[in-house]
Amino acid sequence: MTENKNFDIAVAAGQAKAASRVVAQLTTAEKNALLTDIAAAIVADTAAILKENEKDISAGKEKGLSSAMLDRLLLTEQRVADIAEAIREIVTLTDPVGDIRNLALRPNGMQVGKMAIPLGVIAMIYEARPNVTAEAAALCIKSGNAVILRGGSEAIHSNLALAQCLHKVLQQRGIHQDIVTVIPDTSRGVIEDLLKQSQSIDLVIPRGGEGLIRYVTENSRIPVIQHFKGVCHLFIDKYADINKGVAILVNGKTQKPSACNALETLLVHQDIAGTFLPEAAKALSPARVKIHACELSRAYFDDAELATDDDYHAEYLAQEIAVKVVDSFDAAIGHINEFTSDHTEVIVSQDYSRAQQFVKRINSSVVMINASSRFSDGGQLGLGSEIGISTSKLHAYGPMGLEALTTEKFVVFGDGQIRE
Amino acid sequence: MTENKNFDIAVAAGQAKAASRVVAQLTTAEKNALLTDIAAAIVADTAAILKENEKDISAGKEKGLSSAMLDRLLLTEQRVADIAEAIREIVTLTDPVGDIRNLALRPNGMQVGKMAIPLGVIAMIYEARPNVTAEAAALCIKSGNAVILRGGSEAIHSNLALAQCLHKVLQQRGIHQDIVTVIPDTSRGVIEDLLKQSQSIDLVIPRGGEGLIRYVTENSRIPVIQHFKGVCHLFIDKYADINKGVAILVNGKTQKPSACNALETLLVHQDIAGTFLPEAAKALSPARVKIHACELSRAYFDDAELATDDDYHAEYLAQEIAVKVVDSFDAAIGHINEFTSDHTEVIVSQDYSRAQQFVKRINSSVVMINASSRFSDGGQLGLGSEIGISTSKLHAYGPMGLEALTTEKFVVFGDGQIRE
Repeated sequence: MTENKNFDIAVAAGQAKAASRVVAQLTTAEKNALLTDIAAAIVADTAAILKENEKDISAGKEKGLSSAMLDRLLLTEQRVADIAEAIREIVTLTDPVGDIRNLALRPNGMQVGKMAIPLGVIAMIYEARPNVTAEAAALCIKSGNAVILRGGSEAIHSNLALAQCLHKVLQQRGIHQDIVTVIPDTSRGVIEDLLKQSQSIDLVIPRGGEGLIRYVTENSRIPVIQHFKGVCHLFIDKYADINKGVAILVNGKTQKPSACNALETLLVHQDIAGTFLPEAAKALSPARVKIHACELSRAYFDDAELATDDDYHAEYLAQEIAVKVVDSFDAAIGHINEFTSDHTEVIVSQDYSRAQQFVKRINSSVVMINASSRFSDGGQLGLGSEIGISTSKLHAYGPMGLEALTTEKFVVFGDGQIRE
Repeated sequence: MTENKNFDIAVAAGQAKAASRVVAQLTTAEKNALLTDIAAAIVADTAAILKENEKDISAGKEKGLSSAMLDRLLLTEQRVADIAEAIREIVTLTDPVGDIRNLALRPNGMQVGKMAIPLGVIAMIYEARPNVTAEAAALCIKSGNAVILRGGSEAIHSNLALAQCLHKVLQQRGIHQDIVTVIPDTSRGVIEDLLKQSQSIDLVIPRGGEGLIRYVTENSRIPVIQHFKGVCHLFIDKYADINKGVAILVNGKTQKPSACNALETLLVHQDIAGTFLPEAAKALSPARVKIHACELSRAYFDDAELATDDDYHAEYLAQEIAVKVVDSFDAAIGHINEFTSDHTEVIVSQDYSRAQQFVKRINSSVVMINASSRFSDGGQLGLGSEIGISTSKLHAYGPMGLEALTTEKFVVFGDGQIRE
């Protein structure tokens, strides 16, 4: 398989739809055997995959990609082994397809329930990382979906090498090749065409920068599940346990600042600001966290800049945080509702009613009491591997596991009932 | 409230978003009391509502609306009482908001669950029927959502009269007026503007003809839940109980042919065609059902026309049906997968494995064994009142009750946990 600028996306989407009926009917045992074979084939093909990856790396260097970008693009023997291991972990996850929930008896004797079924065809549009290619394909297969993958042009050789490996296994097992399609055309126009295939594709999941996600959302005729950014708030209530608050602040901000579940804004109730903020300043200083503080909190930090509204909207993704003292519980709720990205918000409080109120009044996709925002992740919340995170409320909200790749149909078991 | 062509939809959507935070926090008891008051106010205001309805009726006659359209538009004392009764039934439904599901303990001691929350702001775009205005508003209020209603221009006076009645009750109870907005502008342009308010509106539900639904789907920047048409199939398997099959056929086709859950295509296994089709012909003849038959089945009916592919795509919504003899179980599945509208499909069979296979292999929104397609309805399936039916798989699939107007956020109850 090589790069191809004359790829017909409508034909490919139609073939993926036909293939989706095949993968939807595979048993869990069949899907697990297929994924186990794929993991083994990826390890066996390591040399070939690394050779193709080298082409992407040297093209990337020529184009002048940043070292961070090149690092995300780079595959090594260990990283290929990690991809295979991630697929083996997907084998261990519970398959939601076919479960019937809430089977209830109606007054006329019919049984009515809801059965989980695959969505059909899922299109993933993402940027440089080649591991997404294999892992997204594995999650879609496990949940009985066909998948169309359109990765960034920077990773095209790596992605096609992984696709070749997957197709070889599908062929060996005599399973419809078009369960997995890696689009060999890296032009922008192909995304535009892809987003029109609403007859064949059931869901589009874009992963990458805000520009890509906005482009997909604004141009798609197919439902999109998106996540623009994570501006996660931590509210230290007046009844907070200071030690828990400091630990959750430091963990949320500094453990992995590039993650979307890292903290970006700290709100502190005025009645506890005088005791909490000196501790916070001390705890954040070893990581040299840059502070953008309101007027009431600025004096507690060395070199803090005055925070603006832009700071309260900012997703720094760096060792940087906005700080604001609020005069009441309601003011904290009001600030979060105004600046929320609907990702993750945390309250630290020992007061039962206030903690419960926070959960009731904040409708972000993940709301936490006394825990680090860094747990806002499919694996940490118990979903297994995640295919993405949704900050829009339709279909899925928050981290998305296998279940978010299914829907439910009604099933009715009758014995000749007709309507009066 | 009167018709207004200078209505600012962006402002209204923003106000609805602010109001949505209020209605989301009402308790079930508060919402039920509000709805009970609204039902009473509608009955008390019957005279005023009928007076405004008369304006719509005479305008409709002047415009030359069909008698069927005028009948859907017409309100009478009884019909107003029925609207109030429908709202009282919504009071009796279980409120899904706030339920926490699957609260599970993680290895680090955190509890993680999913809490049902309202979607936020729901926009309904629909055609002439004024009862939709009151019932959709009631379903949205019960599920904690704000609602923006844009009914057809033919019903504008009736809709505004109902809105006035609702607003009076909201005012009396001191609740944010903008929980319910009836758009007083009936120009087409307002729909275009409405569909751009993705910052404020969470979901659009169009109800009406295929043209309206396609227009909304193609122009919306907001997620849309749609249902284009219902081409419901009945498959009489070779192991069918003939009596059950005939009863389900007659009920599905003739009980209410204008409904989207009426049967449109009958598939008959060739091994049973010779015994089933004469019975079917006899049973359908009193209702004078017009038959479009394949070559193999045509001889069983008087005056049957030869069926074309158009017939197998048709939603007749009339005493009319397409008939086809299939040579195998797989051919029946293949036909349905080719012509499905993803609404409702039924198998009649006494064979356990084939009945189960049908449920497994057909992924329409409602799949039935030995029961009439006419049960494919929110009330009949046990959801209570329905706000619509979805034949697209995202978020909701099939009849939509209160739960389809909610989503789930993750809630995490910690005690100071941080990520290692």
